[in-house]
Amino acid sequence: MEFFIINATQTGNSDKEGEKLVMGVKGNAVIGQSGGPTCVINQSLVGVIEQARKSDVIENLYGARHGVNGIMKEDFIDLFKESQETLEKVAITPSAALGSVRKKPTADECQKIFGVFQKYNIRYFFYIGGNDSAETANIVSELAREAKYELSVFHIPKTIDNDLRVTDHCPGFGSAAKFVAQAFMGDNFDNRSLKGIKINVIMGRHAGFLTAASRIARLDPDDAPHLIYVPERVFSKEQFLNDVQKTMDKYQRAVIAVSEGIHDDKGNPICTTGERDSHGNVQLSGSGALGDYLASLIKTNLGEKLRVRADTFGYLQRSFPGCISEVDASEARQAGREAVKYAGKAEGGSISFKRIAGGKNYKIEMELVELKTMAKETKSLDQAYINTEGNDINGNFLDYVLPLVGELPQLGKLQGYPINK
Amino acid sequence: MEFFIINATQTGNSDKEGEKLVMGVKGNAVIGQSGGPTCVINQSLVGVIEQARKSDVIENLYGARHGVNGIMKEDFIDLFKESQETLEKVAITPSAALGSVRKKPTADECQKIFGVFQKYNIRYFFYIGGNDSAETANIVSELAREAKYELSVFHIPKTIDNDLRVTDHCPGFGSAAKFVAQAFMGDNFDNRSLKGIKINVIMGRHAGFLTAASRIARLDPDDAPHLIYVPERVFSKEQFLNDVQKTMDKYQRAVIAVSEGIHDDKGNPICTTGERDSHGNVQLSGSGALGDYLASLIKTNLGEKLRVRADTFGYLQRSFPGCISEVDASEARQAGREAVKYAGKAEGGSISFKRIAGGKNYKIEMELVELKTMAKETKSLDQAYINTEGNDINGNFLDYVLPLVGELPQLGKLQGYPINK
Repeated sequence: MEFFIINATQTGNSDKEGEKLVMGVKGNAVIGQSGGPTCVINQSLVGVIEQARKSDVIENLYGARHGVNGIMKEDFIDLFKESQETLEKVAITPSAALGSVRKKPTADECQKIFGVFQKYNIRYFFYIGGNDSAETANIVSELAREAKYELSVFHIPKTIDNDLRVTDHCPGFGSAAKFVAQAFMGDNFDNRSLKGIKINVIMGRHAGFLTAASRIARLDPDDAPHLIYVPERVFSKEQFLNDVQKTMDKYQRAVIAVSEGIHDDKGNPICTTGERDSHGNVQLSGSGALGDYLASLIKTNLGEKLRVRADTFGYLQRSFPGCISEVDASEARQAGREAVKYAGKAEGGSISFKRIAGGKNYKIEMELVELKTMAKETKSLDQAYINTEGNDINGNFLDYVLPLVGELPQLGKLQGYPINK
Repeated sequence: MEFFIINATQTGNSDKEGEKLVMGVKGNAVIGQSGGPTCVINQSLVGVIEQARKSDVIENLYGARHGVNGIMKEDFIDLFKESQETLEKVAITPSAALGSVRKKPTADECQKIFGVFQKYNIRYFFYIGGNDSAETANIVSELAREAKYELSVFHIPKTIDNDLRVTDHCPGFGSAAKFVAQAFMGDNFDNRSLKGIKINVIMGRHAGFLTAASRIARLDPDDAPHLIYVPERVFSKEQFLNDVQKTMDKYQRAVIAVSEGIHDDKGNPICTTGERDSHGNVQLSGSGALGDYLASLIKTNLGEKLRVRADTFGYLQRSFPGCISEVDASEARQAGREAVKYAGKAEGGSISFKRIAGGKNYKIEMELVELKTMAKETKSLDQAYINTEGNDINGNFLDYVLPLVGELPQLGKLQGYPINK
């Protein structure tokens, strides 16, 4: 893997509005982490700290605890005082070391944020997060512009969902995909040992990237997962039951990958607890309800005697420390460094990944794109990766995903030389 | 780690019954795997194959697919034909490479098994499994003795539950404990990032060893798990709610480890699907029902607005390939080898581990014990490891468990030097 960094593209809309901001103003910087944590979000944090220490324009780097909430409360820590030894441990630690938050600040709250920024002479704001966090970053940036407060806002992407637009992939996805792939590799063998129907529910509200990563585990045609359902397609219970029956007829077992975000033709989730966050997202994770519902659907319709089990991988997918993609960790660190390199050179933006070579020659470039291109709306899994029936992922997806996942365990089966009866 | 193997102790009850069997009869051997798979059960299989190749008494080694079912169906494979390359891959592959089974053969079925053994001149039977498998091995052994069929039956223990009697610990437990420990290490940080109440449900029907292993994750006093509930104590909903409230008051968050086997004062599981296997075990795993029930109990009683999440670690605990204890893998391999060394020298028995040194000097001996001492009944977590309130595991348990788990990731927190307001 190699990084090749292109020059900063001019971002923001200052020119056309005649409000050209000063470039390269010296001052303090603040960094926050937002949204669901990942296994490598702290790599980006450490990348920012390392590079900020070398910056000509950043005088101090403050860490805001729990994102915008920490800014409003002036709950800051001095990140330049942290030792390199501490930072290296933090870098390999899943979750947000500064604390995270799920919050979209109101206009009033943004005014408060500017007040705090002025008080602390903060001119650079780095925000690590997903699409909701990019939206927050964009709102803060636009309000700063309106208030003529000189502030450069940089968004560093992270999300295990991999659903940000204008980027080949997102830091955090590769490690989560590795977890899902390894989990299915193991579960494939477990289910071969004791046959039955096994449902595994995977994170991914709107985007099926992580669920599709289960496809990595299928090395032989009869390997799991035998069926894969992503939220990019309408989920039909009738088709599902039919698919499961066919798989049982063929393999006498069935391992099924299901996205937590599967929904009916009206867009209603198949199963939800009803809870919502401040961005309007319905709670899907942190409950075994969907898996249990599908298991009972199968038993009721295909036979009460069937051995049906459901596991919901849950928060392990984003927080298990023993399963991190080296590529993902390295890219996440570099994304943090790159954002800081733009400080004083660009008005702000989001770090985006561009794949310039695939396969064994896998190589990416990082570039700066406009904040609004990452904000709010999300990207879906390309329909070309999904089979016609909507119950499987085709092999082309492996070309996309494998370089992001890195080394996988080399498992094996007995050859099984039969003994004549 | 060092192995020191003591001599075979005389096992079986042949002397007192005056039915001394011939020792060292040459013939064929069969091996089967039984019960819930583990991450290292194939290490034991490979250990048996390696050692059997060197044996003076074993002429052929047949693998029975799906345990006793494979024997009855004469579904055998020739394990001596497998290449070392294949075996090394199989060794690191979770789950039972021969296929597993949950079955207690009837007297008629045992007669059938003897018929097959005679047909194939099988004189050595190795069975890798837990207490239910030891029971099966013991039944087969006793019926063989009654039928005056010369057969040595060796049980090689495995179980993530770690609940076999007369052994310091069981192969399979260390790797599962490592998974649980790492999962809680990660979840501790995840929950620090986005505070709330998190319940993690852990395997362990009657024994709390695996749930207790979550205690490894608590390095600082405020680290998770904050509460640990094992099946060795009666679970009271009132106390649970009270414990959770106190923990929230103290830390503004709560990460809770709960065994799937928690039960009320009448011994009824707090939550179950009602399904049973042929050993009479109620289905507890493969469902998120217990976690979801406890989450809803908390919300109903402590506040609907609370952020409460529940994950059930499920089959990942026994089948995740990326998280294997080196000590566990090595001991499991050696247990298979040791069993074969006794072939022709002892009438049969079960391989037991004896700890002869702890801590950094950790060292075990393996010895042969009577089959019936491992069969059917299980061992519980020592009450001395559980605190008076029954909601935590004390630090002494770490002395027991840490040598079995091996290396853990070295995670870290920021020092957090505050900025003056």
